[in-house]
Amino acid sequence: MRARSPWRYPARIVPLAFLGAIAVGTALMMLPAARAEPGHAPFVTALFTATSAVCVTGLSVVDTPSYWSGFGLVLLTVLSQIGGFGIMTLATLLSLLVSRRLGLRSRLLAQAESAGLFGGNVGGVLIRVALVMFASEAVISVVLTLRFWLAYDYPFGRAVWEAVFHAVQAFNNAGFALYPDSLVRFVGDWWICVPLALGVLGGSIGFPVLFELAREWRTPGLWSTHTRLTVWGTVLLSLSGFLVFLTFEWSNPGTLGPLGTSAKILAAFTQDVMTRSGGFNSIDLGAMNTETIAVTNGMMFIGGGSASTAGGIKVTTFLLLAFVIWAEIRGEPDVVIRKRRIAEETQRQAITVALLGVALVAAGTLALILFTENVPFDRALFEVTSAFATVGLSTGITPGLPQPAQVVLVVLMYVGRVGTIAVGTAIALNTRRRLYRYPEERPIVG
Amino acid sequence: MRARSPWRYPARIVPLAFLGAIAVGTALMMLPAARAEPGHAPFVTALFTATSAVCVTGLSVVDTPSYWSGFGLVLLTVLSQIGGFGIMTLATLLSLLVSRRLGLRSRLLAQAESAGLFGGNVGGVLIRVALVMFASEAVISVVLTLRFWLAYDYPFGRAVWEAVFHAVQAFNNAGFALYPDSLVRFVGDWWICVPLALGVLGGSIGFPVLFELAREWRTPGLWSTHTRLTVWGTVLLSLSGFLVFLTFEWSNPGTLGPLGTSAKILAAFTQDVMTRSGGFNSIDLGAMNTETIAVTNGMMFIGGGSASTAGGIKVTTFLLLAFVIWAEIRGEPDVVIRKRRIAEETQRQAITVALLGVALVAAGTLALILFTENVPFDRALFEVTSAFATVGLSTGITPGLPQPAQVVLVVLMYVGRVGTIAVGTAIALNTRRRLYRYPEERPIVG
Ligand SMILES: [K+]
Ligand SMILES: [K+]
Repeated sequence: MRARSPWRYPARIVPLAFLGAIAVGTALMMLPAARAEPGHAPFVTALFTATSAVCVTGLSVVDTPSYWSGFGLVLLTVLSQIGGFGIMTLATLLSLLVSRRLGLRSRLLAQAESAGLFGGNVGGVLIRVALVMFASEAVISVVLTLRFWLAYDYPFGRAVWEAVFHAVQAFNNAGFALYPDSLVRFVGDWWICVPLALGVLGGSIGFPVLFELAREWRTPGLWSTHTRLTVWGTVLLSLSGFLVFLTFEWSNPGTLGPLGTSAKILAAFTQDVMTRSGGFNSIDLGAMNTETIAVTNGMMFIGGGSASTAGGIKVTTFLLLAFVIWAEIRGEPDVVIRKRRIAEETQRQAITVALLGVALVAAGTLALILFTENVPFDRALFEVTSAFATVGLSTGITPGLPQPAQVVLVVLMYVGRVGTIAVGTAIALNTRRRLYRYPEERPIVG
Repeated sequence: MRARSPWRYPARIVPLAFLGAIAVGTALMMLPAARAEPGHAPFVTALFTATSAVCVTGLSVVDTPSYWSGFGLVLLTVLSQIGGFGIMTLATLLSLLVSRRLGLRSRLLAQAESAGLFGGNVGGVLIRVALVMFASEAVISVVLTLRFWLAYDYPFGRAVWEAVFHAVQAFNNAGFALYPDSLVRFVGDWWICVPLALGVLGGSIGFPVLFELAREWRTPGLWSTHTRLTVWGTVLLSLSGFLVFLTFEWSNPGTLGPLGTSAKILAAFTQDVMTRSGGFNSIDLGAMNTETIAVTNGMMFIGGGSASTAGGIKVTTFLLLAFVIWAEIRGEPDVVIRKRRIAEETQRQAITVALLGVALVAAGTLALILFTENVPFDRALFEVTSAFATVGLSTGITPGLPQPAQVVLVVLMYVGRVGTIAVGTAIALNTRRRLYRYPEERPIVG
């Protein structure tokens, strides 16, 4: 980095930008106009809601549609949009910065990238992200508006408003809904669930991959390892999740049991997509089997694609770790994915992100239990994982938590949102030079 | 390795030896003479008990003192002793083999080792391990015998038998007890709890460290990184666990609440030592706070020292990972612990052991939930972690589990016991040579 660059400490940009947005958002949510009833929202409620919106989580300490005024709900939409747009552009730019600085890709791919992908300028990235984002949200809004208007007899104005609200929430993976039961009432409605699920999926892939797919979707042989990992990881995880939801819940009277086969398939698909960060739910979480909840925890923790609106440790991180272990078990000195060797720095980065994630969820769960009387371990773990991975699914305990426990979730949402990116970028940019080495030792392990 | 060596596939020795011991143990436990009541123990009960004894876990599907005959209990003692002795000697020999083959240590340390530590022969290791083991068990037995005889008015014969039984269980970290409530009735008795806790601690350090300490305990500056990590890790974890038990349970009426201050300190110390693999408990687990149980899960998972009778991913693995993350966050290219660089292979090995451990516990918990009606998630997680880390603490669900779920625990005890060692050794010995390298790529992470 040259000294004249404004991005002198680029790893700090995301944390500071999000801190600023949360501060402004909290102040705005505390305006009396934002609340439906007279008076203003208490500080912790406003802080929680603003953090949840900016960090595109969707966890809520109040009943969203009844607690906030129309103005408050518009604020929520704007904050979610800013949060989603911010994370996608900043993370994309940082990944570009990292890859330029370190000369990451092979020359062929780097050429393709600088020519077609970003055109070498920041403005280009912002405009492309904004275009994809608003186009997707517009398409989803149109479909939802028609459906609400024609099939549910909403007045046209309300149909438009609810369509736009949920479309923005979907593409930004934010997860707030205008119904107390999220999407449960629409569980069998293909015209509502499929557009929202596709929106969530689109937002959770990440822009580096979306742009590469737009250019090279017909030639998978040319894909970068990052795109390859994201696409196949997403396919693999989605398919497994779908099958888990379908088979584990097939005859559960509280969830899929009463539905017809096609509605079962739709509900399993929707819940699968929403779990890895969307945050809507069309199945009642409280009625799910323990085994499904356990799998849900794991899926939330893994999350979506890098530089996307999804959270978690990310699909690439998860798959990379699997390849690292596989190479290790087979005794291969290099981790190779389709004739590309994964840099050792990248492997260590993936490990750091995953282990810090585990540590954070463990510490958060413990803190939540310490601050709350009689909260069962599994519920605390679920809520903390949901906050860390900015998913927003809830077993319903969040509104009843004492304020210190709610602040724990606020911290988790914030750190979960900006932490993985900040850590990844900081590591990639700040690696020191090796001036001398100490003698090697090998402690016994395992 | 030369071809004439019998240790041609050394990584397979431990798994095969333990499989053999479990098979023989199961057959013996099925003898009618082993059971207190008429008839013989069912296959799964015998398999579970034999596995639990050989893998020095201590989980039980029956009430140990009333279900088995005197002969059965002697069998249990012998199986625990064989399991503990086997794991310590085999793991020590394998670690020696690995360090010789790869020329692990700096020359100075290697010399000290081959001269003073093992004298270069297998017999030497076996004899030294046996000596330390039997001497420790003898000392504990004498103290316990006197205490049982003088303070509890047991007949002398019974005092000796119970003393020997619990001493063997303690040093081997096996965890079976002759009382349905484990050690709860002795919660305030220093003459019972301290010898057993010291026995557990001694067995859980691991022989490579014990031998090095015996030689160099006065010169910590000369300790190998492995000994350094084990000693400081054990001190750090023990102290944290002690403080957690003491503060979290201080006023809990079901655990430490009714005790005096000195008994509180003793109970916190004892439970702390037992949790990282001993498997006895002097506090009622069912009455513990949720937060204490959560910490207990973590402590069980970490476990004790390498090449010891303790299980888990091991203290060194855990501390190594902490150092790897710390180096990564600071941007250091090498992981350095007191002027010694940790080999990259060792780092990867630690990561593999830890992540496979996480995967195994996750898969085991899911399997247990799938095979069992209405088992709460946190109880399943606790029992599975206890089995994987061969700890033997239980929330009491094991005897009531259906047979497939019991078999899941059997598999976890076995894999948890031999897996980390087999994986570690296999990786260290079988690393292939690098003939060519593919071009490097760096997917985005986090
Ligand atoms: K979300
Ligand atoms: K044990």
